[in-house]
Amino acid sequence: MPPPPPTPPLQQTIYVGPFVFSESSTELDVCPHGAIGVATTGTISFIDRDVPAELNNADGARWKAEKGTEWEDARMLVAEEGEFFFPGFVDTHIHASQYPNAGIFGKSTLMDWLDTYTFPLEASFADLATARRVYARVVARTLAHGTTTAAYHATIHVAATNLLADICVERGQRALVGRVCMDTLSPEYYRDESVEAAVRDSRACIAHVRQLDPRGELVTPVITPRFAPSCTTPCLRALGELHQETGAWCQTHISENAGEMAMVRELFPDSADYASVYDEAGLLTPKTILAHAVHLSEAERKLVKRRKAKVSHCPASNTALTSGCARVRELWDAGITVGLGTDVSGGYSASVLEAARQAIMVSRHVAMTEGDGAKLSTEEVLYLATRGGAKVVGLEDKIGAFKVGMQWDAQLVGLGEVAKGEEGKIGEDGPVDVFGWEQWEERVAKWLYNGDDRNTKAVWVKGRLVHYRPEMEHRN
Amino acid sequence: MPPPPPTPPLQQTIYVGPFVFSESSTELDVCPHGAIGVATTGTISFIDRDVPAELNNADGARWKAEKGTEWEDARMLVAEEGEFFFPGFVDTHIHASQYPNAGIFGKSTLMDWLDTYTFPLEASFADLATARRVYARVVARTLAHGTTTAAYHATIHVAATNLLADICVERGQRALVGRVCMDTLSPEYYRDESVEAAVRDSRACIAHVRQLDPRGELVTPVITPRFAPSCTTPCLRALGELHQETGAWCQTHISENAGEMAMVRELFPDSADYASVYDEAGLLTPKTILAHAVHLSEAERKLVKRRKAKVSHCPASNTALTSGCARVRELWDAGITVGLGTDVSGGYSASVLEAARQAIMVSRHVAMTEGDGAKLSTEEVLYLATRGGAKVVGLEDKIGAFKVGMQWDAQLVGLGEVAKGEEGKIGEDGPVDVFGWEQWEERVAKWLYNGDDRNTKAVWVKGRLVHYRPEMEHRN
Repeated sequence: MPPPPPTPPLQQTIYVGPFVFSESSTELDVCPHGAIGVATTGTISFIDRDVPAELNNADGARWKAEKGTEWEDARMLVAEEGEFFFPGFVDTHIHASQYPNAGIFGKSTLMDWLDTYTFPLEASFADLATARRVYARVVARTLAHGTTTAAYHATIHVAATNLLADICVERGQRALVGRVCMDTLSPEYYRDESVEAAVRDSRACIAHVRQLDPRGELVTPVITPRFAPSCTTPCLRALGELHQETGAWCQTHISENAGEMAMVRELFPDSADYASVYDEAGLLTPKTILAHAVHLSEAERKLVKRRKAKVSHCPASNTALTSGCARVRELWDAGITVGLGTDVSGGYSASVLEAARQAIMVSRHVAMTEGDGAKLSTEEVLYLATRGGAKVVGLEDKIGAFKVGMQWDAQLVGLGEVAKGEEGKIGEDGPVDVFGWEQWEERVAKWLYNGDDRNTKAVWVKGRLVHYRPEMEHRN
Repeated sequence: MPPPPPTPPLQQTIYVGPFVFSESSTELDVCPHGAIGVATTGTISFIDRDVPAELNNADGARWKAEKGTEWEDARMLVAEEGEFFFPGFVDTHIHASQYPNAGIFGKSTLMDWLDTYTFPLEASFADLATARRVYARVVARTLAHGTTTAAYHATIHVAATNLLADICVERGQRALVGRVCMDTLSPEYYRDESVEAAVRDSRACIAHVRQLDPRGELVTPVITPRFAPSCTTPCLRALGELHQETGAWCQTHISENAGEMAMVRELFPDSADYASVYDEAGLLTPKTILAHAVHLSEAERKLVKRRKAKVSHCPASNTALTSGCARVRELWDAGITVGLGTDVSGGYSASVLEAARQAIMVSRHVAMTEGDGAKLSTEEVLYLATRGGAKVVGLEDKIGAFKVGMQWDAQLVGLGEVAKGEEGKIGEDGPVDVFGWEQWEERVAKWLYNGDDRNTKAVWVKGRLVHYRPEMEHRN
């Protein structure tokens, strides 16, 4: 595995410049001249909303002194023109093991996609070298996209899954790491041998992750039944018991596709609906993340709400695999917590920014038939990508926004300025062109619609610098 | 305007390496070890489909000699591992003047979007400095995205429109350049004063472009009634006469949005339908490009087919503005020629690759309700982006594929190789990760779904190098 980028030891740091975050699902808080003081613990100690616009490292001494003696020696990182700080993204559903297949799915739909593309690739993670190569890249790549927290599905392999957790800790990415369980309706070459094996191996991964990070400050285990059709009722129940016993989170899929739903009805004839299958197994709780939820009935929405389970909206995947359009507005109206998932590799992109863009697009497709109320705004999808996701993984008090006491999980975003642009360098600043007359809201919209990892100049998790672009070298 | 990148004088060149292009709408021709000889005229002189895999500048002398004495001194550009040559993209519908608004449209739909965002921006092109700044950037940016041919809508301003043509010639981009005509239902501050003014100013632009490029080898004028609602019947008829008289192409919009269509029914009560409005004005001909065509009736499809008019499919814009889903399969089944348009800034992105991606996504939304037959494949959208577009602008004999006698409008595509990747450099090779086990079709799919301008290493139009990435500096 290539070495992680050099990270200076954690030092008290003041981040100076514009910052933007979701104050609510409909409102961005834009502070054009701010400063955020971050302690060596990674916690935000103070936020100053009105610092002199021209503040820089040289003339900041007096201003720093006003913050108290403990900030006198603090490092300062000052945003350059056009840059702003934004919370890191939360990817609430990503299959780390499927990353090499990103963009490879042809015209398939869910069930044939699993057999053709997914199971053979996942099975190859029995080989640890393969796992290392892929997982190292996934973590590096998602950090580069600004993903500070990811809820990962791995494979059934204990060693490979534990390795993914190791890599997350080493690279400093916050993660839920889940060993996939599947004891039926999966290929002979890739399935749990028995319910006991599924539980035993899940326990092994839970133990490893907890030993790695006893207080769960960065990584935490997550029980991961693939989805109802690939687990027998005894397996689901045993995992439900494990969920209760260990207090580990649970993540799985629900109501993604018509064929899958028909299978669930056939396989679980005694359950009222798909959500009830999980509920009856003890797997529908406030610590459950349900990916997709494209076709939930009203009764299911009510049950999910009652159980306080969370939903991961995966728009790119749902469209790519022709699964359908999940209705975020409907889920919200039912009182359900929603975040965004890239769902690599049903989703073709590991970028949460792309997922946010696709959430906009899908909401417009819903609006075409169901009216304008379905449309999601720029503000709403950026909320989903940050605070919504934070709530989905139970970290809403720690991440997703800039508030005193929360942690510095953040990205420095920079957009290309036409005024500064040299023709020969076009593309180095990313695909966004700012002409200088844009309002803040318009700059953010330009980033959302055309931005990419080139605009994510640096990324921090819990105060630690975990990724930066080459042009940031001299500023670290 | 910043200077164009240095371009060496045209020299006979042999492009050595894999090349890929659309053999038909359903089939990619992939040649893993090819060589394409391009004459100083920019014309493809020979294609060798089976060159030694290890051929390079040093040992190529003998091989070159076999091509004939005139190739002995030819320059060679050899693709590096993972790179391939692909035809340049054709953007059949892009409003160059709206580029600064890319990504800025909020929750608007067509008619309020025009009033709120579009007309004020377009009106500002009365100022030539604004026009120069924007148009220079648009041409540089679209070249960087691999757009070798663009059908541009400019504004009503003669000087600014002529400047756009000048910039295209200077930068070497193939283009149709159109001055927008609109003599009614437009703001007082931004409209043609009279039918005579619309015709006079259109003539002025046609004359300028033809004087600039008498044989129309690079740029050609295009008559551009904005759309039926913003032109009176006398104006449309006068432009129809001008179309016939001058032989200049025509481009406009059709059936994009329900509100617009209702206006057309109200404004043109004597016409059977929207397509007939153009037909009765003499504007529906084999040299007509109709953008959007989201809601064409069967009768209109038959009329468009009978007149051999072309359609520009603008998927990103149609979704972003909630206009609807154009059905490419239905248009094809009706025998209509279709290409892709970015439709900046109704479309948020100036990238035809993004338009191709969105064409896939929109086709899947259609498939959700109308069945799998609607789905477009990777091959089909790449055909739309190249040969389909070439047919739309009447250049199918010259561009869009690699055939002897056609012109070298091409891009060198390179994907990131994980094997080669250094962590610190992640992102420099673009967002695509190739693990080495992918088949050619899968590499192309990865490019389509996750690729961006970083993967477009160099771009040629008519044999001239018109864009290259910094890392190509030493290879030119």
